[in-house]
Amino acid sequence: MLIVHKYGGTSVGDLDRIENVANRVAKAKRDGNDLVVVVSAMSGETNKLIEYANHFSSTPAKREMDMLLSSGERVTAALLSIALQEMGVDAIGMTGRQAGIKTDDNHTYARIASIDTTAMQRELEKGRVIIVAGFQGTNQFGQVTTLGRGGSDLSAVAIAGALDADACEIYSDVDGVYTTDPRIEPKARKMDFVSYDEMLELASLGAKVLQSRSVELAKKLNVKIVAKSSFSEAEGTVIAKESGEMEEVLVSGIALDKNQARVTLRQVVDRPGIAAEIFSKLAVEQINVDMIIQNASTDGTTNLGFTIPESELERAREVIVSFGQDFGSVDYDENICKVSIVGVGMKSHSGVAAKAFSVMAENNINIEMISTSEIKVSMIIDQKYGELAVRTLHDVYELDR
Amino acid sequence: MLIVHKYGGTSVGDLDRIENVANRVAKAKRDGNDLVVVVSAMSGETNKLIEYANHFSSTPAKREMDMLLSSGERVTAALLSIALQEMGVDAIGMTGRQAGIKTDDNHTYARIASIDTTAMQRELEKGRVIIVAGFQGTNQFGQVTTLGRGGSDLSAVAIAGALDADACEIYSDVDGVYTTDPRIEPKARKMDFVSYDEMLELASLGAKVLQSRSVELAKKLNVKIVAKSSFSEAEGTVIAKESGEMEEVLVSGIALDKNQARVTLRQVVDRPGIAAEIFSKLAVEQINVDMIIQNASTDGTTNLGFTIPESELERAREVIVSFGQDFGSVDYDENICKVSIVGVGMKSHSGVAAKAFSVMAENNINIEMISTSEIKVSMIIDQKYGELAVRTLHDVYELDR
Repeated sequence: MLIVHKYGGTSVGDLDRIENVANRVAKAKRDGNDLVVVVSAMSGETNKLIEYANHFSSTPAKREMDMLLSSGERVTAALLSIALQEMGVDAIGMTGRQAGIKTDDNHTYARIASIDTTAMQRELEKGRVIIVAGFQGTNQFGQVTTLGRGGSDLSAVAIAGALDADACEIYSDVDGVYTTDPRIEPKARKMDFVSYDEMLELASLGAKVLQSRSVELAKKLNVKIVAKSSFSEAEGTVIAKESGEMEEVLVSGIALDKNQARVTLRQVVDRPGIAAEIFSKLAVEQINVDMIIQNASTDGTTNLGFTIPESELERAREVIVSFGQDFGSVDYDENICKVSIVGVGMKSHSGVAAKAFSVMAENNINIEMISTSEIKVSMIIDQKYGELAVRTLHDVYELDR
Repeated sequence: MLIVHKYGGTSVGDLDRIENVANRVAKAKRDGNDLVVVVSAMSGETNKLIEYANHFSSTPAKREMDMLLSSGERVTAALLSIALQEMGVDAIGMTGRQAGIKTDDNHTYARIASIDTTAMQRELEKGRVIIVAGFQGTNQFGQVTTLGRGGSDLSAVAIAGALDADACEIYSDVDGVYTTDPRIEPKARKMDFVSYDEMLELASLGAKVLQSRSVELAKKLNVKIVAKSSFSEAEGTVIAKESGEMEEVLVSGIALDKNQARVTLRQVVDRPGIAAEIFSKLAVEQINVDMIIQNASTDGTTNLGFTIPESELERAREVIVSFGQDFGSVDYDENICKVSIVGVGMKSHSGVAAKAFSVMAENNINIEMISTSEIKVSMIIDQKYGELAVRTLHDVYELDR
């Protein structure tokens, strides 16, 4: 089997942990697998380098940031190769460029355009374990680019896709994907399997195991991901295409996202396209609007409510101020959260959402906004009821079974 | 003028020092110069990475070491670019590869094969200051290579040569080349000018300002070096081709090298080629033999004495043991040092060496071995007389004038 491993910053956080990773890789190799291992920078390194850059500038040039930040993964890749070689495993370190990862020109948030696997194929044929510095590639000018937060996961998934690997094992300090956050609901159960679409909803809704971009890419390339812990031998969670038997599962997981704020504009003037203008301006400022509610009043004005990540609220305020003459008053509410139910089973079963609404009512939790998709129901509620809602829903859908 | 600056590890040792370097570069740019700036890793970084590697292996693969060690210079180059941009100077960071530096395949001690200046020329035409990560290049396979100790100086000199720069200013914590070590002789005087050949002798003899490889390359490419301090505004020392007026200077400097050991083989068997065999074996082990004295005795055996760097003595012992049956006994003496007088004037003036020998005799310093070149006289003496010899010679040749 050809397997891609990916080890995050915590898994390679110090020299002993790199040694631990080397032992795992060596074992997987001895078990007869071909291996490509993608590594992140040692935890703390990237933040240290960002601090260094911010010492000189609050807005350092992105091109220079890429040259700066790409150095951490190279260090880990070289060290892991050295550790493996010392164990008698024939390993070779590669930068993103050497591994053939070509990206677009969008510094600090580049997209992988293509992967030239020639060099990797050649080394795999020699029986070598390849250690690739994650998070990076080069653009058409040969300049170093980085892929943004979670970029090493993207590197791993893209390489697994390009090499047609049997699986992409993503190692972190968490041993899989849970039905909900175990710190909120101790009865939370690790899932054996979750579909790409469910994982996408869970990822975008605040479950931190995998980022949406990586899951999207895995879905597109049909790469089987296994989320595992580098600190245990636990089985992990498979993230793959949904299969027939999975349809029995009505609800897979419950996600809680506290990084939410609601903006309510009252008495918005009745001018055609005013909402479009506001949302366009927010989009230009890269503020991610999630749910939107608009309701006309009888006096010819409209109330317009929407949610955004709380961390983007300051920037949103600036945009809204610039529309000051177009509405009567504005409210900002940071004391909200989003609770979401995710499951492919919702596609074919009705009544899932109704059950959620009624159990919320029974617990006197007021639902302020609702949005639904084929496999998800999200509800905005008062933040103080967030954990209660998660536990209640986890219970009512029997996710601990 | 097109000037190449090079800043060593101490000059960019922390964020404040990088800021200081940025101020210097910005000033040189404002003065109307075109600039390429070559930087080393922040002091301590390279040693830290070597320690990391040695945690895993006492003999880490050289290819991986290059990937590891080349990261430090990239960090400095990116940070300096960011600092300059914040000052309003249009700067661009480049790795060795991006700057077009191609090397041979000799990992950790590569030689620069060629420099493709296309990218640098293009950025210079845009009026940009180019910041190049020193110490590194790529081989014909696109793999990262490093140039060995002092490699950033080599990068700077090679770039200055390739771009036909007006000067290569090498900044360190020392403000130039002195007639001798000021810690030994407080009357030591900073030289305004020293020729390549003199500098080569001084460098190889233990003066630490510039390494021989860089001076050799500067001589080959006819690059004018200026050795300066990044911590002062002092003028520095020009290292260039000797000019007519310089011939008046009889002696330029006195060097002291304590990293010396003498090996004496007694009663070496009279077999043709035995000395050649021993020295070949030492060469294979990369032990640098400096002076050699051989004298036949009347009993048909020979005594063979030679000096090597003290730091290579352990490895030399192993070689010598393997020739155990070819000689009677062996002495190792680490309590020696080499004192050298360097000056282009010696070419045309006789009596320079004689003056040295007589002043040593006057001071009861026994000269154990002597070697001379056109512009140098080196003497091996008891280590305890090293400083006295330096001060005496500095005085007798009136180097403080």
